[in-house]
This record gives sequence, structure tokens and C-alpha cells, in this order.
Amino acid sequence: MDFREKLSALRKKMANDNVGALIISSADPHQSPSVCAHWKAVQWLTGFTGSLSTCIVSRQSVAMWTDGRYLLQAQRELNDKDIEIYISSDAEAPSHAEWIREHIGREEKIAIDKKLFSVEEYRSIKRNLGPGFIVEDRSGYVDETWQPRPLISSERLFELDVSFAGASRVEKINIIRGRMKKKGAEQYLAASLDAVAWLTNLRGHDNPIYPLFHSYLFITGKIAVLYTNLSKIDDITAEGLRKDNILLRETSDIFNFLPNETAGKSIYLDPYKISVSLFESLSPSASVIEGIDLITHVKSMKNEIEQKNIRMSNIKECVALCRLIKSVKENVKKEIFLDEYMIGQKVNEFRKIEPTFLQPANIPIVAVGENAALPHYKPKKEKSSRLEAKGFLLFDLCAHYLTGSTDITRTIQIGCLSDEMQRDYTLVLKAHIALATLTFPYGTTGFVIDGIVKSSQWRNHMNYDTGTGHGIGFCLDIHEGPCKIVNEFTPFFPYAMTTPLDVGMLFSNEPGVYKKGRFGVRLENDILVQEDCINEFGRFLKFETLTYCPFELGAIKKELLSVEELEWLNKYHEKTYEALSPYLNEKEKTWLWYETRKL
Amino acid sequence: MDFREKLSALRKKMANDNVGALIISSADPHQSPSVCAHWKAVQWLTGFTGSLSTCIVSRQSVAMWTDGRYLLQAQRELNDKDIEIYISSDAEAPSHAEWIREHIGREEKIAIDKKLFSVEEYRSIKRNLGPGFIVEDRSGYVDETWQPRPLISSERLFELDVSFAGASRVEKINIIRGRMKKKGAEQYLAASLDAVAWLTNLRGHDNPIYPLFHSYLFITGKIAVLYTNLSKIDDITAEGLRKDNILLRETSDIFNFLPNETAGKSIYLDPYKISVSLFESLSPSASVIEGIDLITHVKSMKNEIEQKNIRMSNIKECVALCRLIKSVKENVKKEIFLDEYMIGQKVNEFRKIEPTFLQPANIPIVAVGENAALPHYKPKKEKSSRLEAKGFLLFDLCAHYLTGSTDITRTIQIGCLSDEMQRDYTLVLKAHIALATLTFPYGTTGFVIDGIVKSSQWRNHMNYDTGTGHGIGFCLDIHEGPCKIVNEFTPFFPYAMTTPLDVGMLFSNEPGVYKKGRFGVRLENDILVQEDCINEFGRFLKFETLTYCPFELGAIKKELLSVEELEWLNKYHEKTYEALSPYLNEKEKTWLWYETRKL
Repeated sequence: MDFREKLSALRKKMANDNVGALIISSADPHQSPSVCAHWKAVQWLTGFTGSLSTCIVSRQSVAMWTDGRYLLQAQRELNDKDIEIYISSDAEAPSHAEWIREHIGREEKIAIDKKLFSVEEYRSIKRNLGPGFIVEDRSGYVDETWQPRPLISSERLFELDVSFAGASRVEKINIIRGRMKKKGAEQYLAASLDAVAWLTNLRGHDNPIYPLFHSYLFITGKIAVLYTNLSKIDDITAEGLRKDNILLRETSDIFNFLPNETAGKSIYLDPYKISVSLFESLSPSASVIEGIDLITHVKSMKNEIEQKNIRMSNIKECVALCRLIKSVKENVKKEIFLDEYMIGQKVNEFRKIEPTFLQPANIPIVAVGENAALPHYKPKKEKSSRLEAKGFLLFDLCAHYLTGSTDITRTIQIGCLSDEMQRDYTLVLKAHIALATLTFPYGTTGFVIDGIVKSSQWRNHMNYDTGTGHGIGFCLDIHEGPCKIVNEFTPFFPYAMTTPLDVGMLFSNEPGVYKKGRFGVRLENDILVQEDCINEFGRFLKFETLTYCPFELGAIKKELLSVEELEWLNKYHEKTYEALSPYLNEKEKTWLWYETRKL
Repeated sequence: MDFREKLSALRKKMANDNVGALIISSADPHQSPSVCAHWKAVQWLTGFTGSLSTCIVSRQSVAMWTDGRYLLQAQRELNDKDIEIYISSDAEAPSHAEWIREHIGREEKIAIDKKLFSVEEYRSIKRNLGPGFIVEDRSGYVDETWQPRPLISSERLFELDVSFAGASRVEKINIIRGRMKKKGAEQYLAASLDAVAWLTNLRGHDNPIYPLFHSYLFITGKIAVLYTNLSKIDDITAEGLRKDNILLRETSDIFNFLPNETAGKSIYLDPYKISVSLFESLSPSASVIEGIDLITHVKSMKNEIEQKNIRMSNIKECVALCRLIKSVKENVKKEIFLDEYMIGQKVNEFRKIEPTFLQPANIPIVAVGENAALPHYKPKKEKSSRLEAKGFLLFDLCAHYLTGSTDITRTIQIGCLSDEMQRDYTLVLKAHIALATLTFPYGTTGFVIDGIVKSSQWRNHMNYDTGTGHGIGFCLDIHEGPCKIVNEFTPFFPYAMTTPLDVGMLFSNEPGVYKKGRFGVRLENDILVQEDCINEFGRFLKFETLTYCPFELGAIKKELLSVEELEWLNKYHEKTYEALSPYLNEKEKTWLWYETRKL
């Protein structure tokens, strides 16, 4: 089926039901920030491969909303189709509701797939539409038309040992029960895949880059129920779960179970994380307590063992990255020019030496020249730039280790650098150091911290549109809530503007500069929130940097660094050599010694 | 009537009506941040003189909620009464709703005075209480019990010349009509006293420190109606208003007028600024469009003439402040030790020389020693500390000039300073300079800017709990919305977290440090938002400093300043001499020349 055929099949159904607008979402039933192919309905219909998009089909028109960073990509990928493209954050763009009001006939209805919309999303649609519009659940439209549809993986789940996770699922359930009590809730419902994986210490293969599995979780003071595809759980795992008093049920059973089980009970849930379908299957007599997902908040604060483990993941990953940098630089010197895609694959050779390495955690971002000016550029096998001996190479590579996940970016010199490139590299480094060395009072949110870091660039009339950092999951999602170091509200992280950073939270520290059509610089380490001190002004927190990978000395303008910044850099490089050299051979040590020399 | 008698009178009424909780507010019907004595019901009942408080009376208990900065004062002023004191921002404190739920009997009702609660406040009370509670309007309880009650001033209004205001009221009405059109509203209702005063170019004497008058404003595409006490408008002013097509009506007429006039119309209003009484008097067929008050936003962006005028107000005020500083320092040298209260009065002698000076705009904050550690300390005539030749003297003085208002704080040396005092003074100065020199992209809010400025202190494990700055009205409120450079939501400035700073907005720049029981430092200039530049990263804004008054060179540790900061300071002092010396006599010039010498 091509675009036209799909469209006419959908419109036929719409006409039959007197539906004037069909909202197609790129979400899964768990409100995951990243979904597997099975749920990419917008891509199926339009061919657009960017994430975070919504498409609305009316009887005459089609419109798609996406993130500003995907504009060029959307224009390229949709250029042969008659689809209006809008950037969600653009104040001039019509909102979904405005567009619908203009394109829908009188008496016509609006269709959505209620399992793909969160309660809050649905409320916001209804609120924005205003009275007089009828929104109906029509999951069948896409489900019946999309043939053949990619399947969800049937690979088995595996268990994350307590020596990695730092706490057993029984301990975790008790923590959550404590939180439930505090909130005055008898029951708790979770639908976020990373929340369920964290609590059960199970991991899966349903997402190509995150080790998650489709599931729901229901907890009361007495029982805990895991809803998932039971054929993916082997007997030993099932036995372990039963021993820990976790009941196992097939995913779809939850819709039969909730209506009775929640009758007359108080149930806690996160309206941003629970679908309308789930919500509507609660008993009408349930009293719902809404708020930030309990697990999401608890799991973001890594326990001591997780912290120790993540430190190790970072060292192992940095060893691999150093080998990658060394090999790229040597190749360039020998005039062996790989392309971006190959470099993104090559890192896995170095990673695989480490037995705790699990899998890559992103589609590799490897970018030369102007490609690096697109923060989310991902080279494809068939379309990837070859390196040249000039300017920068930027790579942003994430990995899952059993000891926790990493997300690291370096911008390395592979040829001559202009004065502007060196200046910009140094300014990004200054912003990076600003965050690494920040001390802040307890109660501060990532929203404020983002501005603090960016302000060091603003003073030079520069800026970057991306966030400065995001939470990082422990062998879960690489982008993890509730906190985020960003300057705007996003529905996947609805509490980022109001939830203070807390001890044990793991973040990326990734300021950058992106000069369209020319070059880009980003420098990213992983940082942990730690206690700093308590004094008459209150309690202060600080960051511990976990990532030790050399910065590019040849790209730094020393005169732009303050005395304190220079000191930080030299100390950082000293520690880098100390941390990584035990894992390196003599040649590699010599190389690293030079790369981390005192400036 | 003493506290017990008032309480029993109120409780008698409550018992008659089966009311279990009476919420008493310290607001006026216009949601003014500062109210005149007539509206201070919490003070009348409890004797507590701090602002921003709410009191709830149940059949057995009384509780009062106030701002953290008033805790000590509340404990002192209420110590002989059986009143529970809570800090509103304290997470452990019960919310109003929680307290009510615990203290109210089954079937008992809750009473409020609907004219004193904004629509949003009322919604929040109802939301927090949850279903099953009945909230009734019982304005009579306090109104009938409070005898004798302070009257509202009957002094006449006066007109602010267009040469001061920069735009006629006809021009202003047209601007507002343009905004109404954009919002799709046929009508607009304003209740904020500063909004009405701004639009009408009228000023009054109803508030002891702000030149405002009680009024409402109603505008349609064709008419504009001013509701106020007509006896306060003289014939010439009335004639002028009529010429400008502004209809005049008695205040209370608005409740007869709105039900008919709004029938079937779309009306724009700000739910944080309109009382429940007003809101409920709209026709049920009116379609209400809610959002940030139209005038509040427009008036915060000062026009070119206002900007020019405010520059002049600042110079005139700084001339007076320099004379004050000079006289205090000379007196101390001669061992003439005035007290704080006298200094707060003395400044008016110097101000009165200037014919455009209107009136003081705050109860003077003048504080020596540990008094300065309380950011809002106000010496009273009968209770004021005498100066000694040691440490700092802090004064925070506001003034209304016909050319606009000023809000300036200096901390001056009146004796020996410890090393800690000098260090802290310098760190506050650094934070002050951080804001004065900040460049930021269009779209940035005061919420983020507050963090940027504070972060310079956080790095030294210091902090201040107050905001870094607030909007300043033009001969109106000294604390003006919608923007504010603060880190928390306050109901008087509900849009501060989301409204970006814009060109022409006037702010205070007032970082500080407050060391309880020891000393305090605050340095405050007034700053205007101006265009900076546009480049590939977007549009940048910056601040223009308007206030030129010397900083205390003897309190500055030069070695803590960066090269750029030192340069800024020297330039600032150079400009200070340049700006003020034309208004000074020879002796004063010599004094200022020394005070502004190059460091």
C-alpha cells in the first residue's frame, strides 16, 4: 500500500463513521519516549522517520506536527506527498485543535486510538477543542489498515542481578508501598516500561535500543501483578517472580482485572503515563490520586551500588571511546578515511571486549563538517559522509552495560581548525565546566540550571536550542525523567520544570554550539547529583563527573579559560589518565598520556 | 473590641449559619499586592502587621498562614493569642484545605468574602477541598463586626500629564482594543488599580505608598467605562475624561451593569485579578476568555518617553541619596548618631528640592547591624536602632516622581568592616554585575534569570531567599507584574514563570546576602530591558542600568573581581560622577569624585 492507498482506506472508514478528523499518534500504549517499529503509525502512513510527531487526517487534508529539529528531514521525507508540515513549538503554527476546527465539518466526529493517548494528552485535546466536539475511540482504523505490520519482539526477558541493580524487587516493592502510603493510596498502577523493568529487575528486547519489554504493573498493600507477554518469561524467571510474590498475568488481562479490583479503592497513577484506555477501565467507584509516577521518581535516584556500577560503566565505555578516537586519528593520519556510519559501528568492536557490555543504546550520532550542526544527525549505511582531514568529528554514543548505561559525546580534531572553531569549542567547554562545577541549593530544578549553563554562552551572543542535559536510566531509557536540564515543557517529562534535582540522580552534561551549514561542537559527560554541604543558607548539592575521556587540547584557546576553569581541566585530564590507564596497553597509555597533558 | 471579643462575635455568626470555617483574607477587591488600612482584616482580627497573610477561624481554633520572612514578627505579634502560625511555603505545614478538613464538622459550611478572592484563588480553594464542601459568600461577617473601621481616603484624583506618561488615554485605549481584537474578545474588564490608573493617566491617594485609587474599568470596541468614587473627580478632570469618551460611573454600579452588558458577549479578563463577586455578576451567557491582564502586560513595557523620564527620576533620586549618604557619613564622623527611623525620614528633605518629586514609595527600610539581616526590616519611630560607628548601614528607599518611580538600595560603610563583610559585599556586587551585564535570548523568563544571578553566590555556598528583582511601575505599584526575577510562583505574579522579559520592562536588580543575627548586604539599581542584537542564534536582549549611585569602595575586595567586573565598576563610577555632578555643589562634587574614584 502506498500513501494514497493507506489514506483512502482510512478515509473510507472515517466516512462510514462520520468522522471528520483522525488523530494518528507516534506513541505506544506506555507513553514511551522511544517506540519500536510496531507502534510507528505516523511513519507507516507518511514515511516520516523522525520521532515525536502527530498526524491528523481530515476528509480533504493531512497535516503533521513535529519537533523543530526535524523540519529539514520532514520536508525531505514528505516532499512527494501533500502533507502540511508544522513545528509544534512554532507560535504561528495552528494547534491540533485549531487545525481540526478549520478542517472538520459540522456534526463530524474526531477519532483517536485511546490506548495511545495519555490521560493528560486527551484532556488537553478536549480542553483545546472546546465544547461541542465528540472524540471517539477508533483504534481499528490504523490497526486494521496497517498490513503487514512489524511485530513486537518475542525474545525472552532476562534478569538483572542484584549485584548490578543494587536492590531486590522485594525491597523495591516495599519502597513503593511506603510511597503509596504517604500519598494515601491503596493501589498503584504503572504503565511506563522503564518503571516496570526497574521494579522487577527484568530486562527485555522489545525496543531496538532500550532493553525494555511491554508490560503493566499493579501494586496493592498485599499483591503485585505483572502484566506482560508470558511466553517471554522462562520457567526459572517465572519461579523467581512467584517466590517474590509477584503474580504473572497476560497483558490484555489488565482490562478485565482493573474494573473489579479498583472498585471502591484509592488508586495512585500518573495521568501523563497512563493511557485513556487504562484509565477508563478503572471502576467508576475508584478514587484516583494523580501525580508524578512513584517509580519514576524513586528510580531516578540511583542507590549506592548503582552509583558504584555506573562509575565502572563510564570507565569501560571511555576505554572503548579512547580506542575509537586513537584509531580514527591514526587512520586520518594514514589517509584512511572511514565514513561516519562505519565509525558508529566500529566502537562496538572495542566495547565487546568488556563482558558487562550489553548493547548500543542509541543509533550512533557520528558527524563531520556541517552534519554536526544538526544535533540529532544520524548517518545511514547508504548515506554517510566520508571523513576528510579537516575540522571536527563529533560523535555521541550511548551504551548499555549491565553496570548501567552511558551517554558520552566528544568533538575531536581531525584536521585544521579555524579560529572560530577553537573559540566555539572553548566556549562549549566553559559551559560544560560551568555545570560540572555548579553548586546549588536543594530545591533547584533543571529548568533553572539549564539557564545558568546557557548564560555563559549568551554572554557571547551564542546559544543552543537543545537541553543541557537529561536524566539517564540504569540499563533502561537513556532519556529518563522526572528531571531534565531543559528550558521548556515536554509531555514526556511533564514534571521537569517543578521537580528539584536530588541526590543520586544521573544526568548528561551536554552543552553545544550548532552553526548551520558549517560545524557543530558538543561535549557530553555523565554526572551524578551528590550532597555538597549544609550551612546557614541551607543544603547544597553538587555534581560528580563520572565520565573520563580527554577533551581536545588542540581545540582549546587557553586564554579564554579562567584560572579556575584551567585548573578544572588539568585536574580532569590527570584523573582521566589515572582512571583509564590500568585498562590500556603501553602504546595506548603513551597516547592517552599525551592527550591528557597539562595545559 | 479585643481579639477574644471579635472572635466570639464572628463565631456567633458562624454558629447561626452553620459555618464551620471562616477564611479571612488580607486582600482588597482588586487583588492589590499592597492594601490600605480599610482592607487589613487579618491585622484587625489578630494584630499581625505583616502583609500576605490568611487567617482561618473554626469553631474551636484559629490559624494564620504567612510568608516565611514574617515568621519572627508573627510569633512576636501573636504571642499572647491562641493562634496557630504556619508558613505558606513550608511543605510540612497543612494547606488551608487540609486544615479546614481537620477542623470542620460534618455538614458545616465554609464562609469567605467573595469580593476579596480572585477567581483563581477561589477555584484553588474548591479544588483543594475536594467535593462535598460548600463554600458560601459571607462578606457580612467581618464587615459588620469591624467597628470602627478605617475609611478609604476621600482625597481627589489628579492627572498625570502626557509629557510624563508618554501616551494619552485615548492612545492607550486603542492599544488595548487592538489586544482585545487579537484575543477575539468584544469586551475587557480590569480591576487592578494600577491597570486602571495607567490607562486613564489618573492617580490618587487611596494607598499610603502607591498613588492609586479604587476603581474598575470596562472597555468594549465602542465605549470605555471608569467605575470609581465620583466625588473624588473634580469637574475639569471629569470633563477631560468625557472628552476622551470615558464614561464615569459609581463603583458599585458595576454590579448592576455587568449582568446585562455582558449577555451574549465575549469578555476578556484575568482570573487572578478579577474577584469572584465580579466574575459571578457576568451574564451566564457571556463567553469568558481568560488570560494575563491586557493592561498589565502592555504597561510593563515602558514607552520611549516613559523610559526617558525614568532615567531622569533615577538621577534626581540618586542626587538625594548621595546627599543622604554624605550627611550620614559626616554625622558618624562627628559622632552624631541618628537612628534608622530618622534617616528614613531625612531623605525626603533632599528629595523635596526636586519639583517632580511626588511622595515616598515605601515605608523606609533603614537597617544597621543585624537588623539588615531581615530583608524587610522597617524601623518604627518608637523602635529604631541608633547608628554606631561600626559595620554597615543598609537603606532601601523607593520614591514616586511624576517622571516615574525609583527603588534603590545601598549598603554603606559607617565603621570598621570585617573581612567577611567585605567578602560578602563583593560577592553581592558580583551578582549585581552579573545581572547588569547579562545578555539573554528573547523568550527568557525572570525565573531562569533569577537562577543565573544567584548561581554566582551558590558557588560560594551562599544564597538569598528573596527574588533578585521585580517589575517597577511608572508612578504606580513599586512591585509590578507580569514579570519578576524570582524563583517561585506567587499568586500576585502568576505569569512571572511563563512571561518572557521584553523591551522596555523596568526591573530592580537587587541581589543580597542576609546573615541572621549578624549583618546584611543588598545592592539595588533599576534596570531597563533593551534590544541587544540579532544573529544566527536569534534575538538577544540586555539591560540598561538607570541608577547611578556610588557603590562602597571601602567594602570591595578588588581581588575577588574579574577583569571584566572591575572594568564595569570603574566605568559605572565614571558615569555616576558624570550623571550626578551637574546637580551638585562644589563640596558635594568633591565628595562624589572621591567616592567614585577608580579602583
